[in-house]
Amino acid sequence: MRAHRAPGAVSGHLAVANALADAARTATLAWFRRPALSADSKESDRFDPVTEGDRAAEDAMRALLARLRPQDGILGEERGSSQGSSGLTWILDPIDGTRGFLSGTPTWGVLIALADSQGPFLGIIDQPYIGERFTGAPGLAEVSGPMGTAPLATRAARPLSEAIIFTTFPEVGTPAEAEAFHRLAGQCRLLRYGMDCYAYALLAAGQIDLVVEAGLQTYDIAAPIAVIEAAGGIVTDWTGGPAHQGGRVIAAANATIHAEALKLLSLAGEP
Amino acid sequence: MRAHRAPGAVSGHLAVANALADAARTATLAWFRRPALSADSKESDRFDPVTEGDRAAEDAMRALLARLRPQDGILGEERGSSQGSSGLTWILDPIDGTRGFLSGTPTWGVLIALADSQGPFLGIIDQPYIGERFTGAPGLAEVSGPMGTAPLATRAARPLSEAIIFTTFPEVGTPAEAEAFHRLAGQCRLLRYGMDCYAYALLAAGQIDLVVEAGLQTYDIAAPIAVIEAAGGIVTDWTGGPAHQGGRVIAAANATIHAEALKLLSLAGEP
Repeated sequence: MRAHRAPGAVSGHLAVANALADAARTATLAWFRRPALSADSKESDRFDPVTEGDRAAEDAMRALLARLRPQDGILGEERGSSQGSSGLTWILDPIDGTRGFLSGTPTWGVLIALADSQGPFLGIIDQPYIGERFTGAPGLAEVSGPMGTAPLATRAARPLSEAIIFTTFPEVGTPAEAEAFHRLAGQCRLLRYGMDCYAYALLAAGQIDLVVEAGLQTYDIAAPIAVIEAAGGIVTDWTGGPAHQGGRVIAAANATIHAEALKLLSLAGEP
Repeated sequence: MRAHRAPGAVSGHLAVANALADAARTATLAWFRRPALSADSKESDRFDPVTEGDRAAEDAMRALLARLRPQDGILGEERGSSQGSSGLTWILDPIDGTRGFLSGTPTWGVLIALADSQGPFLGIIDQPYIGERFTGAPGLAEVSGPMGTAPLATRAARPLSEAIIFTTFPEVGTPAEAEAFHRLAGQCRLLRYGMDCYAYALLAAGQIDLVVEAGLQTYDIAAPIAVIEAAGGIVTDWTGGPAHQGGRVIAAANATIHAEALKLLSLAGEP
């Protein structure tokens, strides 16, 4: 095990990650469910609460990292990337699920991950409005929220015909991606839409079996990978390769259902 | 104003409604996010957390009503209807959004309404996991939850091209219903799925502009009607008639967008 993944180092990383999540909670909630402006205000007078919340949260997290971890790199959704000297990079998505945020739903989240050259190994999915935090790291997988703190563990294998699958939009991505997705989803017991990053949290919490999406960015999936892997699940691309650079992603509760689902996700015209 | 809609009477009804919602919170949360049984357990050994939670919550509410309001009628999703002598009926849906409940999402709700011969005039949409309660009654429209208590007010009119519309499933209902819905949704800025009754709460809270669904039951829509009307919105069927018996429902933030949306919801082959 590399030194930065050893227990002592991990507890230091977790303290930083929780401080980042706390700061982002405050910054995003200041813009969440702000009253809409009246319809007759000029377009140029309108604030965009998502943009404001996104930037405020990322800036708050960057300010903390400048103080606590000046040697680490940062990859943020809003403000680009900066190289560090430690070999570690914080990957920040201050508001994942911007359309959910804009609509007032409690399904968007703050995503925070810490990655080394192997990919993300520590992650937080935080839902500020509910006050719920899903955390995964070497030796730790837990959720804290309205019902207290509990361990996270993905579901045991069950047949696809009993599985619950989530994606965010029915269109999924390209027509070929949508076709592959719906070939798989059609075999499942229940298909649900619209949960943004909260779907990955539900998978880590043992509530659902599969989340499949396309067109993701690194910052969309880094934290879910760390949380889900710590909880016993698997996240790959649609061919079974690494998913931490985004693109087409499948998150599965266990190896059995992951293998079954991959067979149905093959894309026409691709090897 | 009828006596049972006068302020003094309403505050009595609200005390009962809140007691029902509190009881249903406890009963549903006892079954929410219960760990799944292992896959090798026999089918007959499996509990169905939705059925258990639904029944436990409805029974708890019925027990309270037997004590507090023996003269009122009850229409419940699980245990049918009973006539009262007061002219008032409590309409109960202990878990609206059973598929959301089953998946662990925080978008299902407990729906409680009080109706007279004119329809529902007092309603609660309660989300037990978040601890959030949306209440509408004559003279009252408010939400209490993680950010404290705030008044509910629907949005001012804006063009469809700036509107946010929700429905639960992309299929909506019959093919003709889906076609009408997507004709409307195609004119809107943003379409989102999967929020169950929480979409109506978001409309009452001024976050979104339209919720359109088909195939509803009385107990699905009674509480949303009371909450949304108290917050300044409008709920009708797709022809502009009363919606409190369910079927095809449109909830709108204001009269302007309601009228615009109705024009696009006309069904082929129907007058």
